[in-house]
Amino acid sequence: MNQQTDKITVQSEALQEFASALYQRVGVPKKDADAVARMQVETDERGVYSHGTRALPGYVRGIRNGAINPTPKIHQLKEALSMALLDADNSLGHVSSIHAMQLAIDKARATGIAVVTVRNSNHYGASACFAMMALPEGMIGFNTTKTGGASMAAFGGAEGVLGNHPLAYAIPAKEEPPIVLDMACGWAAWGHVGTYGMEGKQLPPGWVLTADGQPTQDPREAKVMLPVGGPKGHGLAIVTSILGGALTGGVAACNRTPDTPPELARRGHFFYAINVSNFCPLDEFTEIVDEEIRTIRNSKRAEGVDRIYMPGEIEWLKQQEALRDGIPLHRQHLDSLAALAGELEVEVFWK
Amino acid sequence: MNQQTDKITVQSEALQEFASALYQRVGVPKKDADAVARMQVETDERGVYSHGTRALPGYVRGIRNGAINPTPKIHQLKEALSMALLDADNSLGHVSSIHAMQLAIDKARATGIAVVTVRNSNHYGASACFAMMALPEGMIGFNTTKTGGASMAAFGGAEGVLGNHPLAYAIPAKEEPPIVLDMACGWAAWGHVGTYGMEGKQLPPGWVLTADGQPTQDPREAKVMLPVGGPKGHGLAIVTSILGGALTGGVAACNRTPDTPPELARRGHFFYAINVSNFCPLDEFTEIVDEEIRTIRNSKRAEGVDRIYMPGEIEWLKQQEALRDGIPLHRQHLDSLAALAGELEVEVFWK
Repeated sequence: MNQQTDKITVQSEALQEFASALYQRVGVPKKDADAVARMQVETDERGVYSHGTRALPGYVRGIRNGAINPTPKIHQLKEALSMALLDADNSLGHVSSIHAMQLAIDKARATGIAVVTVRNSNHYGASACFAMMALPEGMIGFNTTKTGGASMAAFGGAEGVLGNHPLAYAIPAKEEPPIVLDMACGWAAWGHVGTYGMEGKQLPPGWVLTADGQPTQDPREAKVMLPVGGPKGHGLAIVTSILGGALTGGVAACNRTPDTPPELARRGHFFYAINVSNFCPLDEFTEIVDEEIRTIRNSKRAEGVDRIYMPGEIEWLKQQEALRDGIPLHRQHLDSLAALAGELEVEVFWK
Repeated sequence: MNQQTDKITVQSEALQEFASALYQRVGVPKKDADAVARMQVETDERGVYSHGTRALPGYVRGIRNGAINPTPKIHQLKEALSMALLDADNSLGHVSSIHAMQLAIDKARATGIAVVTVRNSNHYGASACFAMMALPEGMIGFNTTKTGGASMAAFGGAEGVLGNHPLAYAIPAKEEPPIVLDMACGWAAWGHVGTYGMEGKQLPPGWVLTADGQPTQDPREAKVMLPVGGPKGHGLAIVTSILGGALTGGVAACNRTPDTPPELARRGHFFYAINVSNFCPLDEFTEIVDEEIRTIRNSKRAEGVDRIYMPGEIEWLKQQEALRDGIPLHRQHLDSLAALAGELEVEVFWK
């Protein structure tokens, strides 16, 4: 199969307008539609196709069938100088998350650090996007989220009981690309398993189990994720489930019942921002970060390794390329967007 | 080799008095000596021998040869409502870390969350101890530290360039043991590699490299740690090196030169505390945590697995056993303490 023929290159601006139009067509106000579209296109630019516009049809169908509120009234349930707990009113995850991270940034500017948690929200796409909101503010960003399903086994387990939660850190640099770590607590995000399936590839051994709890490398058979590094991924998944769960008043994936109130069963998120200049002048900090990046990049490489990448560097390089040459999207990805556009009578802009 | 004959069981109280006496003999004030001894004995109780009193001779020799200051004046370099940056004045790591975590807790009570970083400090033993200080306060604790040497390879690397930094979270539960995750960013802490060596065991494959960058399973040949889960451990090690490094004004392990001022070359630490009751009543929170713990523990197990443990549960169980039956310490561990006690004319309490 020639990979070239599988991809169509689209321009960011056109994709963003198109995505925003789809959201607006189902009742999302223009400001929110534009913001969500921007984040999803940014995620595509960064090559994280699983969490970019490929997820759009799912969100839009959620709005159409009443599962997601296109016009939420996000409100504060608790507040103190360096914290807030928000009720997202069943919003698109991106909408409440942008609101929450901005609030954490504003509060951190006054006190040095602030944490904001969110309940009653939905899937928010790529964690990296929200942590990265801290970067132009000269801050360090962190976030995590309670994912939807109990799709990961405990360490030593054979059925899904943990969420495969992501966590993301963003740290500003000076001349180097920022450090952006966005990782799931399992060996891979489910979206990446989907990418393996779409590309017809086998998964590495030891990543997943079948529905019966047996090891497999077939992405189509993968039903249970295993925690990365055994007890370490297991521990991180439990911690993040509480930061984005219990700390929002929410209920863990594994403990939801038909009687769980939906506002507690839905996704919860956790964000913090740290204001670097409270600790040292931002310029000095970013110079130290740059120096560390260069030393690590230039360290001795293992045989067969061409280059050592910093966290988020591959995504940053892909984004530079995408901004110059366009975003190479898989035909299946675009076909799915085209099908939705047909239903909503939005014109497709690619050939 | 009969394992029984390798161990001597000692009581916590006697070990703690003995450890405190050793510190006091080299000029550490009683209050600090008691606090450090308590934490190291607690670490032994928890079965983390590598980071408990086994590390004591190294600290005491550091004080004797002038590398560590037994009577530091810890002072604040920066402060805001929810943050502080401390200079540890080259203290024992435990001393400045107890101070810093307590400050984070006090500030978090007022504002919801607070972060304290420390520069010019030294090795602080087990990360878990400081995160766990948050538990009786009804808070979530986190901490990490910049370790001493560049002993871990980057993902794709073949020489030590990252520190094998630990990170620890502690989360209060109600009737269940608290959740305490304490993990290194490499496959194992170096102290645990030492434990393999002391017990004559081979390391699992893929954990470490020799000084030449070649794979090995021999703990005596292990010179370079590999990051857990490839890019994930690599990313976490870089993030933690900045939280405990650049954010304290410190210099990364890989970038130290003979000209680096010692107060910047020494270890840095990073602590935060989150006040749960700002988000929801502590009782409700801990009930949700308990429920989650029980569901995970009771999930379906893989073949051959007797029990699923929560993060820190094995250590908690060992501590209960140690408090009842005493702490089983390896003869080599005690021999090393006895040798030091001989030098300092402190009486050995075990036979």
